[in-house]
Amino acid sequence: MQKQMSPSYDAETWPISAAMLPYPGVQPDGSSTQDAPADAWYGVLNEVRSLGFTEVDPTDSWLRIADLAPSRLDEFSDIVKRLGFTIPAITTARRSIIDPEFADENLAYSHRVLDVAPKVGAKVVSFGLLPRFMPAQLDALWFWEQPGYSDPDDKAVWDLCVARFRELGDHAASLGLEIALEMYEDTYLGTADDSVRLVTDIDHPAVGLNPDLGNLIRLHRPIEAWRSMFAKVVPYAKYWHVKNYFRMEDPASGIILTSPAPLESGMMSYRLAVADALEAGFNGAFCVEHYGGDGLGVCASNRDYLRSVLRRCGLGSRQ
Amino acid sequence: MQKQMSPSYDAETWPISAAMLPYPGVQPDGSSTQDAPADAWYGVLNEVRSLGFTEVDPTDSWLRIADLAPSRLDEFSDIVKRLGFTIPAITTARRSIIDPEFADENLAYSHRVLDVAPKVGAKVVSFGLLPRFMPAQLDALWFWEQPGYSDPDDKAVWDLCVARFRELGDHAASLGLEIALEMYEDTYLGTADDSVRLVTDIDHPAVGLNPDLGNLIRLHRPIEAWRSMFAKVVPYAKYWHVKNYFRMEDPASGIILTSPAPLESGMMSYRLAVADALEAGFNGAFCVEHYGGDGLGVCASNRDYLRSVLRRCGLGSRQ
Amino acid sequence: MQKQMSPSYDAETWPISAAMLPYPGVQPDGSSTQDAPADAWYGVLNEVRSLGFTEVDPTDSWLRIADLAPSRLDEFSDIVKRLGFTIPAITTARRSIIDPEFADENLAYSHRVLDVAPKVGAKVVSFGLLPRFMPAQLDALWFWEQPGYSDPDDKAVWDLCVARFRELGDHAASLGLEIALEMYEDTYLGTADDSVRLVTDIDHPAVGLNPDLGNLIRLHRPIEAWRSMFAKVVPYAKYWHVKNYFRMEDPASGIILTSPAPLESGMMSYRLAVADALEAGFNGAFCVEHYGGDGLGVCASNRDYLRSVLRRCGLGSRQ
Repeated sequence: MQKQMSPSYDAETWPISAAMLPYPGVQPDGSSTQDAPADAWYGVLNEVRSLGFTEVDPTDSWLRIADLAPSRLDEFSDIVKRLGFTIPAITTARRSIIDPEFADENLAYSHRVLDVAPKVGAKVVSFGLLPRFMPAQLDALWFWEQPGYSDPDDKAVWDLCVARFRELGDHAASLGLEIALEMYEDTYLGTADDSVRLVTDIDHPAVGLNPDLGNLIRLHRPIEAWRSMFAKVVPYAKYWHVKNYFRMEDPASGIILTSPAPLESGMMSYRLAVADALEAGFNGAFCVEHYGGDGLGVCASNRDYLRSVLRRCGLGSRQ
Repeated sequence: MQKQMSPSYDAETWPISAAMLPYPGVQPDGSSTQDAPADAWYGVLNEVRSLGFTEVDPTDSWLRIADLAPSRLDEFSDIVKRLGFTIPAITTARRSIIDPEFADENLAYSHRVLDVAPKVGAKVVSFGLLPRFMPAQLDALWFWEQPGYSDPDDKAVWDLCVARFRELGDHAASLGLEIALEMYEDTYLGTADDSVRLVTDIDHPAVGLNPDLGNLIRLHRPIEAWRSMFAKVVPYAKYWHVKNYFRMEDPASGIILTSPAPLESGMMSYRLAVADALEAGFNGAFCVEHYGGDGLGVCASNRDYLRSVLRRCGLGSRQ
Repeated sequence: MQKQMSPSYDAETWPISAAMLPYPGVQPDGSSTQDAPADAWYGVLNEVRSLGFTEVDPTDSWLRIADLAPSRLDEFSDIVKRLGFTIPAITTARRSIIDPEFADENLAYSHRVLDVAPKVGAKVVSFGLLPRFMPAQLDALWFWEQPGYSDPDDKAVWDLCVARFRELGDHAASLGLEIALEMYEDTYLGTADDSVRLVTDIDHPAVGLNPDLGNLIRLHRPIEAWRSMFAKVVPYAKYWHVKNYFRMEDPASGIILTSPAPLESGMMSYRLAVADALEAGFNGAFCVEHYGGDGLGVCASNRDYLRSVLRRCGLGSRQ
């Protein structure tokens, strides 16, 4: 939590990954992306590259690189190298290590993700407690419109969660990696206060947060002011999913509606947030995300916006 | 429905028309645009040109070129030529050939539009079953907030509709033209399934669809997922009105709200839609539309966005 | 109200100020911006300058330059000069001269603002009847979601208002200044008709309007169509706060929701509004405002958009 004197990057070199969220884990023909020929992987990564990205996060809703056979991982790594990508971090999604049903399986998977990270040059892995979707969420226009599972109010589960993330922290540290825990509603990382409490309970130098406030500001329910949340969690940030939303509240009727928004014009000021983060010593990679619409196109615009903000934070004149 | 091997255009030459929607059919002084001096036409077309458009659709809510006297059509054509515009297609609006009151009149008008099309170089005419506005629609902030007329559930009317579009198809074919039928709620072209059924019943090589999903995704009611709709209708597309919307649904209260949105950031991914369309062999012109706000400015931004998407579809390296 | 033959500016030189709205009147350490060292002022003004602004409005929610001691005003002026800013106008906020409690204090303050204006080169002061916030407004996501105070339906207060603005008009005229009265809901400037009535009652050549329709189109209640309002007020415009909103109305439920929007894509067409204003002889400065999100970044985009619109209004080819 000490303020760093000077970040490792300037505005042009700061790593900003494209999330692979816009790409499904299932190919048009119904087969798994996991089993797709390398050409299919190349196709989408080339599309990402063609929009100017030089960093990518192989979000595991698209491809679980931790579960690739060695020869297939080589194929993946070759493509990444051929396209000139670096991989600052790997994000796992909906693989909760305290899932009521798949906790052990997900823990084992999480260890495998840590094992694969150094092989693709990643320095950080983003874990979360995001639950599997409820059926109504899958049918919704935007999944956050519908309630999902909640982590239980159960000290034993909390303690298990702490112990397992600490175990993953040890593993990460042994590999020179860090872990970022993604904030997400109705989990033990569902509020700023809970997130700080969890990471403090874990109390491991390799374990921090992914202050993905976009997950919270899009909820159709009252939320804490974003800047208040951010002030609490930013000191722990090790990786940062950035995305924004329009948010409208009508107190008279109680209606709250949100829509995915470009990073610049959504309700959260990333100009302020980035300044706050640099002030707090944040030195990690960004990952641009966007749901709905042209996710990739908006992410590319968001990346350009983010660099313009970084330039204005005094990081532009380094060279 | 055969997949074409190669489209006729590249990203820079693909025709993208400006709709004349932002311009009213009535002049500031209350007179009709139809009777306005050529200078008034020049003024607005020059404004469109000044935003970089090289194609224009003389939407007939602005000007009914089919109803111009020969000398006035010459004036119009001179302006178009002087400004360097081409006219890939002409869109008619709210001229239903099965209108309860004006069906015959509208049919005759539709034939006149086909007759005029070759004179301005147009290859496609977009017809639709859009009904006249209800009074409440005219008073609404956005007309789609209020219910409009519905085509009747009446086999005889359906058959008449089929017969008349086939008749127009014959006329079009005789002139080397094609017809695109615009999807629009509560008409026989109000859903993807109905649209396919209508065009299949018409069964005429010159008659296809205008898959204007923007008309549907903006409705304050449940809708079929856009990509599911698009997969059904895109094989028949001959001309394509493109526009986008923010769409918010609150399942708890049943509230659904929408707002006109830039093409890139609205809820429908035109990056995916364009890729799907090229895959399906779409080879027609686009027409950018936008309601409310600065329609022309947003249309120009949308055109630039569309070209950037076409470039990424592998069409950029032709020259 | 005579139409001016030719405006004083072209598209590149037309003054477009950044509002200082994104910056608070309180420093991070809790102290007042008023008492902050000049370096703090420089920091934020430099940030504004770095986004390409050459004009700035020292909105008094950030800094009350009228209340600075002479030496501190010199510090402020030095910074403004050093950064190459001009100050076309000064905006006061929530300093109603008919405030139930602070009317006299606010009137005295308003005179001081007029006195300071020539010292920083300002030609216009924007006054308003904006009331102090209600507690619920301060807690709201956007303050306009909650009702605020209303000016009383009281002829005596109206007359006092007229008299005081006339008094300020005399003062302004004596200094070669003009006054623009900002439209704002539930005040005597809360509708287009009331605004015209008030300025007509004041009947002073130095007193006009600030047709800030953004304040009205964002309200969660029925409003007059923006262009109808604008036609009424634009002849009196002397300074113009521009901002835009997405606006959604659901007549079935009565729900109306709004969100801050970029100037180009919001529901009001600034392309039309600017054309209307030039047609009406508007010759004053613009001030770009934006609430929520990255106010400064959106304001900079809005400024660029505004210049592109001015260029298309035939003002681009002057040089």
